[in-house]
Amino acid sequence: MYVYEYGDEILIVDCGMGFPEDDMHGVDILLPDVSYIQKRIQQGAQIAGLVLTHAHDDHIAALPYILPMLTQDFPLYGSPLTAAFAVARMEDMKVHREVLTYPAGRLQLGSFSIETIPVTHSVPDARHLVIRTPAGIVYHGSDFKLDMHPIDGKRTDLQAIARVGQEGILCALLDCLRVERDNWSPSESSVRDNLVREFRDVQGKILVTLMSSNIHRIQQVIDTAVEFGRKVVFVGRSVENNVNVAGELGMLKIPKQTIINKKYINDTADEKLCVVIAGSQGQPGSSLVRAVSGEHPIISITPKKDRVVFASEPIPGNESNVYWAVDTLARNGVEVKYSDVDEGLHVSGHASKIEQQVMISLLGAKYLFPIGGTDRHRVLFGKVAQSMGYAESNVLLPKSGQVMITDGARIIPGETLNLREIIVDGLGVGDVGNIVLAERKQMADEGMLVVVLPSLGAHFDASEIHLVSRGFVFMRESEELMDDLRLLIAETISNARKERKSDEIVRLIEKKVGEFCYKRLQRRPLVVVEGV
Amino acid sequence: MYVYEYGDEILIVDCGMGFPEDDMHGVDILLPDVSYIQKRIQQGAQIAGLVLTHAHDDHIAALPYILPMLTQDFPLYGSPLTAAFAVARMEDMKVHREVLTYPAGRLQLGSFSIETIPVTHSVPDARHLVIRTPAGIVYHGSDFKLDMHPIDGKRTDLQAIARVGQEGILCALLDCLRVERDNWSPSESSVRDNLVREFRDVQGKILVTLMSSNIHRIQQVIDTAVEFGRKVVFVGRSVENNVNVAGELGMLKIPKQTIINKKYINDTADEKLCVVIAGSQGQPGSSLVRAVSGEHPIISITPKKDRVVFASEPIPGNESNVYWAVDTLARNGVEVKYSDVDEGLHVSGHASKIEQQVMISLLGAKYLFPIGGTDRHRVLFGKVAQSMGYAESNVLLPKSGQVMITDGARIIPGETLNLREIIVDGLGVGDVGNIVLAERKQMADEGMLVVVLPSLGAHFDASEIHLVSRGFVFMRESEELMDDLRLLIAETISNARKERKSDEIVRLIEKKVGEFCYKRLQRRPLVVVEGV
Repeated sequence: MYVYEYGDEILIVDCGMGFPEDDMHGVDILLPDVSYIQKRIQQGAQIAGLVLTHAHDDHIAALPYILPMLTQDFPLYGSPLTAAFAVARMEDMKVHREVLTYPAGRLQLGSFSIETIPVTHSVPDARHLVIRTPAGIVYHGSDFKLDMHPIDGKRTDLQAIARVGQEGILCALLDCLRVERDNWSPSESSVRDNLVREFRDVQGKILVTLMSSNIHRIQQVIDTAVEFGRKVVFVGRSVENNVNVAGELGMLKIPKQTIINKKYINDTADEKLCVVIAGSQGQPGSSLVRAVSGEHPIISITPKKDRVVFASEPIPGNESNVYWAVDTLARNGVEVKYSDVDEGLHVSGHASKIEQQVMISLLGAKYLFPIGGTDRHRVLFGKVAQSMGYAESNVLLPKSGQVMITDGARIIPGETLNLREIIVDGLGVGDVGNIVLAERKQMADEGMLVVVLPSLGAHFDASEIHLVSRGFVFMRESEELMDDLRLLIAETISNARKERKSDEIVRLIEKKVGEFCYKRLQRRPLVVVEGV
Repeated sequence: MYVYEYGDEILIVDCGMGFPEDDMHGVDILLPDVSYIQKRIQQGAQIAGLVLTHAHDDHIAALPYILPMLTQDFPLYGSPLTAAFAVARMEDMKVHREVLTYPAGRLQLGSFSIETIPVTHSVPDARHLVIRTPAGIVYHGSDFKLDMHPIDGKRTDLQAIARVGQEGILCALLDCLRVERDNWSPSESSVRDNLVREFRDVQGKILVTLMSSNIHRIQQVIDTAVEFGRKVVFVGRSVENNVNVAGELGMLKIPKQTIINKKYINDTADEKLCVVIAGSQGQPGSSLVRAVSGEHPIISITPKKDRVVFASEPIPGNESNVYWAVDTLARNGVEVKYSDVDEGLHVSGHASKIEQQVMISLLGAKYLFPIGGTDRHRVLFGKVAQSMGYAESNVLLPKSGQVMITDGARIIPGETLNLREIIVDGLGVGDVGNIVLAERKQMADEGMLVVVLPSLGAHFDASEIHLVSRGFVFMRESEELMDDLRLLIAETISNARKERKSDEIVRLIEKKVGEFCYKRLQRRPLVVVEGV
């Protein structure tokens, strides 16, 4: 989420969800922290509108969570496909809100005048935003590539970008994710020949899995299936929903009688079927994973006959899930094709360094602001810009939450907001914080030991101390350890009882038990003492 | 670990450690299950010897754990470097055992006659084993590549391999890990030019991090440092130890006065220093990670002056640690080079498909047995072999623990042993099993709730029920939830007390509390009930 302010007017760009780091155990998704916007609303600011750049979840999927937190009425805008995907995402969570489509020409939202420029990306109908303000023009260059042969024929409008550049841009934000790559990103249409090769000589079904928002790749699979005389079946909630939405907008061209409802899949011979199935990241519970495990109610995969094609690449962090699926298929005798054995089955949706340099040249912005990558990408983008003549001070590398201020001529850093991504875990939004995550991490790595003490008033025997291990040691095989711990705890209590308060005794027991376990096993279980 | 048997004689090849999967929380390393060998010893079998192929941890590092479990006297053999690394690994854990070096000519261990063939790999002095037995010849082709320009000039002996092939090999085991790659693996010596480029124009120190067992790459860093008039400092336990061992064996050529002890690093100007530092996988606590965090007692990294070079690639599973280090360096203004921006800084130590095919051709073995890869690699290797004329039945793809039996002519599957890798967690070896791991996983994902009940004998109030959350919800902000849970538990007890036994009541509370938490938050904490 990006926030632009002019006076008391706020323009929000995108509202996406994030994914947890490896050590954020049990966290489902992350949401942007909107506390600053909430504070500004209380101070009298008005949200002029929320505009969306494209239909990927990291740009739209926080909407159903965040909109109810912003207690103001304001319009939402997106391109036709982005608007439709955003509405579907909200309806999933029973949030009913209209998303308008960008008008032809400029969209005036308060002091912000917004022109959108169609760009190519791995989801159709993506836009860059030209945001004209009284303080100058900002070019909001979200995720893009410069695909010269997009499936819908709609190339990124370089003429329009050059025209805006000639007007004079104060600051251009630009997708820097693939700045490490030198070569121009291959066109989406280059995938077709590789799909064709995979469709040859398959005795049974062809199952293709891919990112469900990649409507153009789905189009290419459909076209290839038609070429080979196969019918197409869509399987998996995300694929089915996205195909419906894109189909209604006329963004998928499907010849009549090509599609078979998955319920009637058995009416067609396997060698006449192409199954487009969700789960290309090996997500647990996805249609593909259930089919691979033999647990899908409709889709079975036949060894030595069917072929599974991953027209996708593992997103960093998903490797073990994806390779679990590939290994399982291979072990079961199913032919499986994936990016390590055939790179041509996937192309990136992001501009490489040379495409970014073309954009930098056309925009001629005074300031550049790399977005969409991690720090190593942003720093490298800065070096690329410097190699093209930019001063170091004219490449902005603010931290998340860092406010940037302009008087129309210069851009300088303002305050740094103390922002924390909001954690979603199950139905809880924001109730899991750092303390709970730290407890989960300790219990994951070291386990837990619960100590239940008898009443301390009376004399008691060590055997009355209850110990419960979970994830620390296997109780039934650790009786000696447990006996030693009971004696240690009893001794600790009788030494400390007279002089100390009960909460001090609890802390002392936690400390002694922790030290003992570490000395004995080099493990530090979370210790909970109760009953004092 | 591979085990060969002839009659009552056992030959063990390698004794390596494994790394835990993502969901094996808190597990340090995995060891091979040797229960079958222990059983065979009890039945009167004799271990003829244990022979090592090369010095990587996944082939030697379980020795200090496993040798004490094998209560027999038998000799250990390795090449000079492998033997020295293995001894060092054992001494680290106070296990004192000699590892002999392979004799010239053949080594007779019981009925097994072993010839070793030098091969190239990412650690020097690696060997393939020709194991001659009364039942035929087995070629044990562990990790290798066919490097035509190895740093020590010792190419894989293709003549020797062809000669063995002419004798007639019953079964060849062969490293299949990189079967997905078509191109001949680049030579280790190709790294040199890229190192030279990275040494140019550096104002301050150059820090190179790499796999500490890659002695040949360390040699190339030393050579490059000498070329640029820089002294070399070794930092990090694994690098320092391995350099010492390799140096004593004459396997590192270091010109006099090139090496500086790290204690005296401040006596030399930064622009005259090259630091070879351990931690290329971003391991927490490694020298590199401490230096990156500014926490290393000796090594500091100066922004805008020093350069950090990763002459390595992230091993799958280590990406987030490695990129944390890269991102942190980039953010701090330190120039950092790594495989995504310069692929030439690392080459694989494994044969690609075409090298494997050369080996298959030279060996001409009756049976092939791919090793060293996961299932997808083994299956793909099998297809490559079939494309070269092998019958499907002559490519062996047994599961781990599957015994293969031969009469000297055919190889057929025998029993499948029920093997489980032994888990090492801290000082505990084998005490953490599936139950403890399952508890850790649940507590990691969902947290835990401890319910401490007052004595059930007397009447009690719901407020006397103690609840402790760890990793489930943040107690202080969840009072309403806790109150509701106390009422639910009190109600459950009063409804059930008369008819049920106390352990049934405990199970009922666990169930009710679990259901309640799931309904309210879609989380299923591990519930522990105590005090009944």
